[in-house]
Amino acid sequence: MDAKTREDAVRRLKSAAGHLNGIIRMLEEDRYCIDVIKQIQAVQAALNRVNEGILDSHLRTCVTTAIRDEDSAERERVLAEITEVFRYSNKP
Amino acid sequence: MDAKTREDAVRRLKSAAGHLNGIIRMLEEDRYCIDVIKQIQAVQAALNRVNEGILDSHLRTCVTTAIRDEDSAERERVLAEITEVFRYSNKP
Amino acid sequence: MDAKTREDAVRRLKSAAGHLNGIIRMLEEDRYCIDVIKQIQAVQAALNRVNEGILDSHLRTCVTTAIRDEDSAERERVLAEITEVFRYSNKP
Amino acid sequence: MDAKTREDAVRRLKSAAGHLNGIIRMLEEDRYCIDVIKQIQAVQAALNRVNEGILDSHLRTCVTTAIRDEDSAERERVLAEITEVFRYSNKP
Repeated sequence: MDAKTREDAVRRLKSAAGHLNGIIRMLEEDRYCIDVIKQIQAVQAALNRVNEGILDSHLRTCVTTAIRDEDSAERERVLAEITEVFRYSNKP
Repeated sequence: MDAKTREDAVRRLKSAAGHLNGIIRMLEEDRYCIDVIKQIQAVQAALNRVNEGILDSHLRTCVTTAIRDEDSAERERVLAEITEVFRYSNKP
Repeated sequence: MDAKTREDAVRRLKSAAGHLNGIIRMLEEDRYCIDVIKQIQAVQAALNRVNEGILDSHLRTCVTTAIRDEDSAERERVLAEITEVFRYSNKP
Repeated sequence: MDAKTREDAVRRLKSAAGHLNGIIRMLEEDRYCIDVIKQIQAVQAALNRVNEGILDSHLRTCVTTAIRDEDSAERERVLAEITEVFRYSNKP
């Protein structure tokens, strides 16, 4: 992954971890269930954004390199991983 | 997409359409709400399987061709589409 | 489920089945993979709308009745179903 | 929400925050993109478990109370929230 994507991902993950700590405080203050669920869903949406950024960078770097390479087993592995990640995104 | 993937997708989509017609009958017979919802979720899961098959084939054909090609705009377009499909799979 | 919700669900499911038949034709005409995937994702989104309508009606009818009832086993069953449907919606 | 659910949610969210910090370290060590994405998807799955637990408790406490109450506006509000949370779970 390129440096800009990595920095962006680190920044967003730190923000998500901070958000989770805020949600823990909401629970400790016995806040309303639905408000807690909505905040957790917001963190999940933020994590989707991170994954999209990393996948985009991965396609432009590792996947592009593997597809241009002569090593067909490596190519196969890299393409299968994309489908696997897509499959899992349909059922976390 | 390769012929085998296309045939497999057509077969699964015909099955899904048949499944939907069965669910319409369930509604007309006033069957229990939750049973209807579960059947609709089963159709959605079947459609995910179709999308995974098509994406897998797409990566091995169109995407591989585009990445090996000299046309950088076409390459860019094809890679951006993968991320877009992944993004949408996170929020249908 | 109330009559209006049922009619609305039948209408939307018929439309979704028609949409699937259109996608089958797209495959038979060998249309571009990504366009097919996006159409399938549109059907999945339409099915989510159906499930939301049915769930909303279910809460106002069956669940409300069960919660007001004396039968605690039935109440337990009905509430567990809601969580189950929510869980599955997180991983079709 | 009942005390047991709240304690369970706090424990799981602390674990998820720790997991995110581990993923930040993975990024700083320039680990393989797909491994990072899979770890983020694992956190998202863990957050789904938290939401399911909170929703389950919410149904047994706040929703049950509201449905048995005379205040129809409050009942309406509480039921609409369940559908809203379900809708959002279909598109984070």
